[in-house]
Amino acid sequence: MSRPRPISGYPEFLPAGYAVEQKVLDALRHVFELHGFAGIETRAVEPLEVLLRKGEIDKEVFTVRRLHAEADAADEMALHFDLTVPFARYVLENAGHLAFPFRRYQMQKVWRGERPQEGRYREFRQADIDIVGDGQLAPHHDTEIALVAVEGFERLHTDVGTPPVRLHVNNRKLAQGFYEGLGIDDTAAVLQRVDKYDKIGPEKVTELLTTELGLSDAVARQCVALADIQTTDASFVDQVRALGVTSELLETGLEELVALVETAGAAAPDRIVADLKIARGLDYYTGTVYETELVGFEHIGSVGSGGRYDSLASDGKRTYPGVGFSFGVSRLLVPLITKGELQASRPVPTCVLVAVDSEDTRAEATAIAQKLRSRGVPCEVAPKADKFGKQIRYADRRQIPYVWFGTDQVKDIRSGEQVQADAASWMPAAKDLTR
Amino acid sequence: MSRPRPISGYPEFLPAGYAVEQKVLDALRHVFELHGFAGIETRAVEPLEVLLRKGEIDKEVFTVRRLHAEADAADEMALHFDLTVPFARYVLENAGHLAFPFRRYQMQKVWRGERPQEGRYREFRQADIDIVGDGQLAPHHDTEIALVAVEGFERLHTDVGTPPVRLHVNNRKLAQGFYEGLGIDDTAAVLQRVDKYDKIGPEKVTELLTTELGLSDAVARQCVALADIQTTDASFVDQVRALGVTSELLETGLEELVALVETAGAAAPDRIVADLKIARGLDYYTGTVYETELVGFEHIGSVGSGGRYDSLASDGKRTYPGVGFSFGVSRLLVPLITKGELQASRPVPTCVLVAVDSEDTRAEATAIAQKLRSRGVPCEVAPKADKFGKQIRYADRRQIPYVWFGTDQVKDIRSGEQVQADAASWMPAAKDLTR
Repeated sequence: MSRPRPISGYPEFLPAGYAVEQKVLDALRHVFELHGFAGIETRAVEPLEVLLRKGEIDKEVFTVRRLHAEADAADEMALHFDLTVPFARYVLENAGHLAFPFRRYQMQKVWRGERPQEGRYREFRQADIDIVGDGQLAPHHDTEIALVAVEGFERLHTDVGTPPVRLHVNNRKLAQGFYEGLGIDDTAAVLQRVDKYDKIGPEKVTELLTTELGLSDAVARQCVALADIQTTDASFVDQVRALGVTSELLETGLEELVALVETAGAAAPDRIVADLKIARGLDYYTGTVYETELVGFEHIGSVGSGGRYDSLASDGKRTYPGVGFSFGVSRLLVPLITKGELQASRPVPTCVLVAVDSEDTRAEATAIAQKLRSRGVPCEVAPKADKFGKQIRYADRRQIPYVWFGTDQVKDIRSGEQVQADAASWMPAAKDLTR
Repeated sequence: MSRPRPISGYPEFLPAGYAVEQKVLDALRHVFELHGFAGIETRAVEPLEVLLRKGEIDKEVFTVRRLHAEADAADEMALHFDLTVPFARYVLENAGHLAFPFRRYQMQKVWRGERPQEGRYREFRQADIDIVGDGQLAPHHDTEIALVAVEGFERLHTDVGTPPVRLHVNNRKLAQGFYEGLGIDDTAAVLQRVDKYDKIGPEKVTELLTTELGLSDAVARQCVALADIQTTDASFVDQVRALGVTSELLETGLEELVALVETAGAAAPDRIVADLKIARGLDYYTGTVYETELVGFEHIGSVGSGGRYDSLASDGKRTYPGVGFSFGVSRLLVPLITKGELQASRPVPTCVLVAVDSEDTRAEATAIAQKLRSRGVPCEVAPKADKFGKQIRYADRRQIPYVWFGTDQVKDIRSGEQVQADAASWMPAAKDLTR
């Protein structure tokens, strides 16, 4: 094998970077469990027809088949492109064994055959929380999900050092009701164009609405005026009313969004923004939608999103409405880790290197290491009975803070300080124990 | 969607089962990090040619392609079938950024297109540890890997309740040297037949060796006599010598296996067995090989395996020899969890359900829950302001041990005992905090 090169769209980290991803996953899991979400995992593949039925506008899936399958065999399986569609399938499959409302989290990789570019990967990790009900699900769960999302990101900010976030929320009923009030039939088509607002700006959106959908200039400008509205409190309601459009669905959407913004905003001040241009690319959302902006890193795009889906999971007889949020773990971490903004304090978990005098006494060094490990101190035994200077350099190259010599000497190789110590009781400084 | 059914070969757990898998992964990770292994993950796909070059006898890989790829485009990517081959690629790709010997662990799913059957899955999880050197790697690492493997399984035994294990070890140089000493050229072909010993027995192996490989009955019986040897100490050496075969390679193999069995056996009595029929299906092993037997569940087959590979990772100029071990997490857990042998104490992480008096006071209940969470107590707020009896049944169905009422009352719903408590200081019994 000649030296292999990375494949575009499939980010991989060096050990010091992966340690950050682990910290992020641990912190999110901790928050999710504090809120009573149970973890599950689903298989990476789903029947192709399941993925194609529900999903994203312009989605690209990867099909999977056995190398030795018949050449003309149909593609039957594909890699999941999100965790919501597999979760909906899991709920239907296991409904008899689950208690509803069912709260679950799921942290797995997903795959999309998109053209790789900054912030867009072919393989990436998401960490999802969802709550699904049997037949119905109270609207207060939309607020709850928003607050867990914010708490998750706040935890990452304090524990791992990622930037703080603002959660932007909207409600599809609001937008759809508004469009209906304007006499528009194909509201989904309008939503798709408005979804490009952040990328192409209001003028271009107006143009798309008139040229592609044949809306009058006045109606198109009304749609864009709605998308322009952004407030951190319930004052968006007055701004919508000032546009003079009315419909029943619009009223429902306004009510739901007010409840969310007021309750969540009170619990997490300055973190929740009503942002009426948020559309979301996935077509299964039916009410609340969320997107997340990293403060100071807005160019990365949304690092977490989700929403309410009232009819994603249905077996024909029963329907399981849900609301969920997906942390874009790779979207958040790949830029920060790759550019060196986030890194573990050392590339190895090892806290102490136990030096080896000679190969004949390796067993004694191993016994010292086991004593330290039994009290939770990560250790390595030096791979070779080199001169001590070389063994210290081995530790130094890995940023291992301590080297243990003989039966009772330990040296902090950063300060050079060496002390007598008992492997049955000595502990490193707390900050050195983990990285 | 009609109610979906499980797909054979792709095991998924209910939440109480997945909680066990998480405990297992946490425990293994803890052991790996105590021994200085750094975590990494690699992408799920590799170029097809990389996977086909190194690998398993009879392996079946799954190819991956974009749904909208040209119909006649070549299959270029495939899902990895183990974590060793991707790791070797990662080492070559990142050699300039790694310090050698490089110690890493990796816990990911792998995919094989085998016919699904008990203990054989198309998607399953492995947890791997490997140590690779730059140019050379000392043989004591073979012993080290054996001991970390045993320690990992012991930790699972004590922390999660999986059965104890015995690690069976052999050395390919020993077997290959023995076959060479018998004048056999195609030693790999003999190894492949001997690998079936446990499945088909010594008589059938002898038959395969004579009919398929044309060995004389006497020579075939010698090969099977070697495979018969199994000892918990170094006495296997005398038994091999008694067969009267000699070769230089055989001597090297004997020496290496003695060193491993004596050192590892001293550190982990009764856990290490020299077992000269162990062959391992993967063709990249060059010395030590490991397999693992669950005591009392031997019928499950090996739940962990690995070995020494001296030339898996090479870019033509440099070679990175390695030794590793793979915990068969799914192989171990799927039978035990599916049959109910292992299960979390409750299907949700929630320790306290905070009851809701009326929808108007939901915010107060949420505030109580947040106080408890801030001290690490997993809580849910009741989804509906039902009668308290119904809210208690909600908790009971999920085996949530406590229900909180109003501002200062908490009830253990198992005993019925209700006490006054302050949400800023009350803690549940330690055994109830986690499941």
